Amino acid sequence: MNEIIYVDNAATTRFDDEALELMIDLQRKFFANPSSAYKISRPLKKILQESREKIARCINAEPHEIIFTSGGSESDNQAIKSIVLAKLNQRPNIITSSIEHKAVLNSCRAMQNLGCTVTELQVDSSAKIDPQNLREKILPETEIISIMLANNEVGTIQPIQSLAKTSHEFGKIFHTDAVQAVGHIPIDVKNLGIDLLSASAHKFNGSKGIGFLYIRDGLKISPYIDGGSQEFSIRAGTENIPAIASMTLALEKNCESIRENSDRVSTCSRILLDYLRDQNIDFILNGGNDRLPGHLSLSFKNCDGETLMHRLDLKNICVSTGSACNSNQTKISHVLQALKIPEDYIRGTIRITFGKENSFDEAQSIGEQLSKIVKSFRT
Amino acid sequence: MNEIIYVDNAATTRFDDEALELMIDLQRKFFANPSSAYKISRPLKKILQESREKIARCINAEPHEIIFTSGGSESDNQAIKSIVLAKLNQRPNIITSSIEHKAVLNSCRAMQNLGCTVTELQVDSSAKIDPQNLREKILPETEIISIMLANNEVGTIQPIQSLAKTSHEFGKIFHTDAVQAVGHIPIDVKNLGIDLLSASAHKFNGSKGIGFLYIRDGLKISPYIDGGSQEFSIRAGTENIPAIASMTLALEKNCESIRENSDRVSTCSRILLDYLRDQNIDFILNGGNDRLPGHLSLSFKNCDGETLMHRLDLKNICVSTGSACNSNQTKISHVLQALKIPEDYIRGTIRITFGKENSFDEAQSIGEQLSKIVKSFRT
Repeated sequence: MNEIIYVDNAATTRFDDEALELMIDLQRKFFANPSSAYKISRPLKKILQESREKIARCINAEPHEIIFTSGGSESDNQAIKSIVLAKLNQRPNIITSSIEHKAVLNSCRAMQNLGCTVTELQVDSSAKIDPQNLREKILPETEIISIMLANNEVGTIQPIQSLAKTSHEFGKIFHTDAVQAVGHIPIDVKNLGIDLLSASAHKFNGSKGIGFLYIRDGLKISPYIDGGSQEFSIRAGTENIPAIASMTLALEKNCESIRENSDRVSTCSRILLDYLRDQNIDFILNGGNDRLPGHLSLSFKNCDGETLMHRLDLKNICVSTGSACNSNQTKISHVLQALKIPEDYIRGTIRITFGKENSFDEAQSIGEQLSKIVKSFRT
Repeated sequence: MNEIIYVDNAATTRFDDEALELMIDLQRKFFANPSSAYKISRPLKKILQESREKIARCINAEPHEIIFTSGGSESDNQAIKSIVLAKLNQRPNIITSSIEHKAVLNSCRAMQNLGCTVTELQVDSSAKIDPQNLREKILPETEIISIMLANNEVGTIQPIQSLAKTSHEFGKIFHTDAVQAVGHIPIDVKNLGIDLLSASAHKFNGSKGIGFLYIRDGLKISPYIDGGSQEFSIRAGTENIPAIASMTLALEKNCESIRENSDRVSTCSRILLDYLRDQNIDFILNGGNDRLPGHLSLSFKNCDGETLMHRLDLKNICVSTGSACNSNQTKISHVLQALKIPEDYIRGTIRITFGKENSFDEAQSIGEQLSKIVKSFRT
């Protein structure tokens, strides 16, 4: 049996070895509560502060603009709901897009249930949002605009700078769910001009259960998890220092080699696509040209994504279906639906997301196995 | 220099060795997303389900009544706010006590800012809440009653069964913040008759950043962190399996030896108290008789808690002040204030909380050092 070929890095990434060893080392060495006043807590306070500085540096933020959370979902909830709840009696409007992650969409819906209105911007066939469309939809009562930096299903990168600029022209707060992007493409929050950014460690080779939220200096935001005065009184709960420090190292390492990793996964993508084309496989590459490196959403004609995924799994290749499933039926995901992929392709969608550990040989193997499986659908 | 004597187990506990090694082992072995459909995710799904079963068994719950969260603060926020937000347009009332943890009190205050009313029950000098007092305060619009199982500053255990029964007589939901109690005293949610219970792993020798919420079967509750369909669609976010599994082992181990640990820390307490009394030290033991084993809130006459804490720290003994501090001034905590401790004692309060790793010799050493330090205040 061959080794596992893991190409579902948009779902989660392998823990970076050094980051994992750092976490283990800190778990073994320290256990005190970082908020305690005695001397054994001091190294933990120091690691917390240094982590904040290093994370900030990775996205060109200031240390006090970073708060640590339990992950991307919490960061998204905090960003959207804390802003909106503070103005709830004014029945604020939220603008988002039809292709956001459920953490954003369901946060918006929860706020809708409390009396807010939600405007969902539509996307074009490459999953792009037009800033002009945003401009037309902004209402006086719009409180926050939340558009993801890069889509998790098709990899499309949005014109965030332009969307943020448009939002600010109207004096509105701009949040971006950057969970898929942080550590994979260069991000400069000052240059992008955004107010809030969500990130999740396990998407960039850190641990699950930890993430962060960038909050632009001067932006007033209430806590979402109320309690103690941790994280500048914006996020309560005893800090998980080993997880925070290991996330920080994972992000630093990814950011240091971002170009190299990007080149590698882009080459993997090209090898796979070239192979499929050479084999005359009939497929669509979803999501246009501005996409995350190594992120491929492929729709195969007259195929079934779930079957493709399972047959690849039998060959020890881990990919994801493009569509979210529940146990009873295969539903086409809201993202793929928004893209208006032709009917005879949409059900045959899988997502292949290369990571920094994938090799060119693996890309070639995937091409070979995938071609065989797709061809078997026709017979 | 002698070894560190750590007696601040109410702030956080040392990671149980076996639980830590399990976490490390799982981190090294598995990294996939538990929600993924391919075979490498299956062991993670299994661990998740087994953890749920084991945690449930520890508190006499059913597996589907347990959801995993990022810790006690999140669990408290989820319990209170999710219940209240669902009825927000009816301006619900919340009943809590004046001695709750900030995660509860500040959650209530956040809801107050959205138009709810909050009733704070007062406590007697032993920090106890009278169920009769609760009965008198329940309003038609009361939606939830949140009373902690055991207090974090003075260790007092509340008459939860009676408080829950009273709440249910009026058809109200009863939540208890059991962060200090889980793993330290036997807890049977069915016998207590509660609807919601919050717990935090790092208080019972598990990791920071992980906890759980018990939700009684049949109780409808909305997610607080919206997003994916993890945790029965009540708590979104990719599950941190190594943390969950290690929390589970830590809790199982603590529950298996709960009597033995309780006896040990109670003996530690007795050794310390006996020594102080032998030395004619003038102090008050706060919080009455129904208290967590090994939990001592001591107020020394004409002393200063912060100074006591720092001088003990110089002797490598880690205790906590009874009062929360900020950087500029020492404030008497809301809990100590509620207890009406005499003026000449209240400022001299420290908290000593023994854990399962403390020895009788350590208790004796603390007595010796503490007596010396307290006596030095008089000279």
